[in-house]
Amino acid sequence: MEQRTRRGRTPRAEILDAAGELFTTNGYATTSTRAVADAVGIRQASLYHHFAAKDDILDALLAETIATPLELAASMRDLAEPPATCLYTLAWFDVRQLCAAQWNLGALYLLPEVRSERFAVFRLRRDELRGHYEAFAGQVIAEAGVAGIPGAEALPFRLVETVISIRSDEGAAPEYAERTIPDATLRMLGWTGDLDEAREAAGRLLDRLDARLPLG
Amino acid sequence: MEQRTRRGRTPRAEILDAAGELFTTNGYATTSTRAVADAVGIRQASLYHHFAAKDDILDALLAETIATPLELAASMRDLAEPPATCLYTLAWFDVRQLCAAQWNLGALYLLPEVRSERFAVFRLRRDELRGHYEAFAGQVIAEAGVAGIPGAEALPFRLVETVISIRSDEGAAPEYAERTIPDATLRMLGWTGDLDEAREAAGRLLDRLDARLPLG
Repeated sequence: MEQRTRRGRTPRAEILDAAGELFTTNGYATTSTRAVADAVGIRQASLYHHFAAKDDILDALLAETIATPLELAASMRDLAEPPATCLYTLAWFDVRQLCAAQWNLGALYLLPEVRSERFAVFRLRRDELRGHYEAFAGQVIAEAGVAGIPGAEALPFRLVETVISIRSDEGAAPEYAERTIPDATLRMLGWTGDLDEAREAAGRLLDRLDARLPLG
Repeated sequence: MEQRTRRGRTPRAEILDAAGELFTTNGYATTSTRAVADAVGIRQASLYHHFAAKDDILDALLAETIATPLELAASMRDLAEPPATCLYTLAWFDVRQLCAAQWNLGALYLLPEVRSERFAVFRLRRDELRGHYEAFAGQVIAEAGVAGIPGAEALPFRLVETVISIRSDEGAAPEYAERTIPDATLRMLGWTGDLDEAREAAGRLLDRLDARLPLG
């Protein structure tokens, strides 16, 4: 008899939740699949039914951190919305989901293991997300029409991911980030429009795309 | 007889260099002091002469990443320079040193170990550096006189540290960052002055303080 100690929708979700906690709290290298199984309250053999190896668990956790923003970005690509609205929407949604996630999984991006071949697909997907950010940002710069900062289109993606450091330092998701970071992504591109309007337009676009903001 | 395999100014510097490589390449938890000693070409007993434990090596490496920007920030605090010049100078210097460091040591900030009591002093020092950034940024916002983005004073420090993620993703220090990031720190605070002038003023201030920019 197993005594499952985590409440989750599925055994798979319970394993991911326990692993997310252990990897971010104790470290990835030092956490065994046995420790994950123990934390869930299942046998190691039951865990292997869902994940063949520890790196498969890490891969699934990493994939979670980019899946919904990637989907949102792809759904906005062919709309006729102003690029500032698209960038604001993506940044807002992404900051919110990085803040709302139970564990600060983005802290795992910097693991040496993630630079190995095993995680090449994850890295490609994250590059894809970064590409969406850079495309929207490039369009915002082009529309602003002023001599902007060369290379600035790379920064919105990076600024959004600073949520990870802030969470790590402050021990909690920063409340101000959800407004401050999307606002700043537009301002640093030389965009001088009204930020309240950008936010309202982003809210309407999220409704239209039926993309619910993760609960903050 | 020991066959030291690293070239460094001192045995201590050689140990730090080897540990910096192993911690960032193989991981902190999985690297033993024995492995560090082997990489330097010294006996473990010789290593213990310089560092009593592995966390002392990590602490020394972490301290390196903030020592020179902290010193620079403190030396600017009581000058009558415009805050935009101080913030630009600090961001430029700090981006440059994060890029120029042999190993991407900032990736170690997110280790679970660094949240333990052992590293409380390091965390305090890094908070102090963050405080300098926020003080200069707050003054820039106040001088800009426009309704800025609430909470934006927290972002320049965070944006500078994105060098760490960029290095990790791209495998090398990003050339554009040294100009793009300091420029963006001012723009996102609502500062509308001339960025070329800010950069020239920062260069003059660094000369005056005899703070050499780390070689890029």
